[in-house]
Amino acid sequence: MPQSPEELRSTVEAYLEGLELWPELHGQAESVRYSLVVGGKRVRPVICLAVAEAVGADVAAALPAAAALELVHTFSLVHDDLPALDADEERRGRPSTWKQFGEAVGVLAGDALLAEAFRLATSYDRTRVARELAEATLGMIGGQYLDVTGSAPDEATLHKLKTGCLFAAAVGLALWACEVEDQASWRAFGDELGLLFQIVDDILDADGYVETHGVDGARLLADEAADRARARLAEVDADTSVLREIVDSLAVRTA
Amino acid sequence: MPQSPEELRSTVEAYLEGLELWPELHGQAESVRYSLVVGGKRVRPVICLAVAEAVGADVAAALPAAAALELVHTFSLVHDDLPALDADEERRGRPSTWKQFGEAVGVLAGDALLAEAFRLATSYDRTRVARELAEATLGMIGGQYLDVTGSAPDEATLHKLKTGCLFAAAVGLALWACEVEDQASWRAFGDELGLLFQIVDDILDADGYVETHGVDGARLLADEAADRARARLAEVDADTSVLREIVDSLAVRTA
Repeated sequence: MPQSPEELRSTVEAYLEGLELWPELHGQAESVRYSLVVGGKRVRPVICLAVAEAVGADVAAALPAAAALELVHTFSLVHDDLPALDADEERRGRPSTWKQFGEAVGVLAGDALLAEAFRLATSYDRTRVARELAEATLGMIGGQYLDVTGSAPDEATLHKLKTGCLFAAAVGLALWACEVEDQASWRAFGDELGLLFQIVDDILDADGYVETHGVDGARLLADEAADRARARLAEVDADTSVLREIVDSLAVRTA
Repeated sequence: MPQSPEELRSTVEAYLEGLELWPELHGQAESVRYSLVVGGKRVRPVICLAVAEAVGADVAAALPAAAALELVHTFSLVHDDLPALDADEERRGRPSTWKQFGEAVGVLAGDALLAEAFRLATSYDRTRVARELAEATLGMIGGQYLDVTGSAPDEATLHKLKTGCLFAAAVGLALWACEVEDQASWRAFGDELGLLFQIVDDILDADGYVETHGVDGARLLADEAADRARARLAEVDADTSVLREIVDSLAVRTA
């Protein structure tokens, strides 16, 4: 029996909770842990583990990659919240990292999350997991730049970078961690998943795609992305039942 | 004929100048390049290349590792200069990155430098270069934390983290890049080199070791560290003439 999305999420949480941070971080570790435990839906690492499971690999093989991805996502939130960027004082009902620990430690917390992510990604013998993580991180930072400077050529480009890069990596990292070489359909699936997540995000926030396409138009685009994601899953030779469940729930999520 | 330190530095400069940044960085690339070309002595990458040369490897084999190390060093300067940390408006006679591009882009420039460093470090097939770079970066960040919070147990601990980690990595990265397995004397050499650099830094700035040991005391400590570094070099089976030259010049440097 493959693990359900909820079971995979518990697996991610347990791994993150037990994660041994690099000892030389000293007191900086506290703000790193604080940033991580505030938590969230762990969507990206759950997708990563579900892909590993679908291809018949041991979920444990993809856990360092999945956790590294969640650390990169958390790094981006910690730096986005800084006064110089979004100036958010709260995240998920608790003080944001810089608000809790001061701005200097908030900058360093993001830095440490990023470096820890790469330490995790280099626990594999070959560099392919860490390399794809670095590339995805750079794309996400490029998206952040376009966002804060208001210089994005269009919304699709912006979202493909800000959201799409890490969703694509959720699939890509699992493929490398599990040594899957036939990747085309999988990668197309990852791209659709990122698009689906972004459109539903905009429907929930009533911005982005809702502004350009209206609520009904955005809903249609989301449904089409979900259909294409399911079609891609049907192409791969794997047990994709859990991933189909994830697509279904991403399409109708309300939070 | 091995390349002189000056030739190695030119090699580093040329490589950094020609470095192709990840295209998805978009406009963020400008601040990354700005931060890099402000330059400096390139001490760490030169040491890295000199170790590669000493063990008889092709200097080109260590270039991505050496450049990655310089990018991590530059990342640390860019974030240190931020208003929330040292609030430095100038670096080497030019506006610091955040002063030139604004604080948001300044934060992202440091992030991008770190991610690009890992992309470079993962251009090797095996993860050992990137893993040691991640560990050294985490130690350096831990040192930054002790510094900004004033919580360092003692000065030696602080400097071993803030300066020592990247000097040790300058040697360690070259060893992995060139697949040198017998590392003990080399690693002891790297530690002495970091200590030597730090003490001389304090002599030039009249702080740190000068405050605790006086000028003459600090000078003596520097000379002893240089002697131990030379003794470690004498232990390894390699042409260490260029590295001896580097030790000599670090001991008597005036800038």
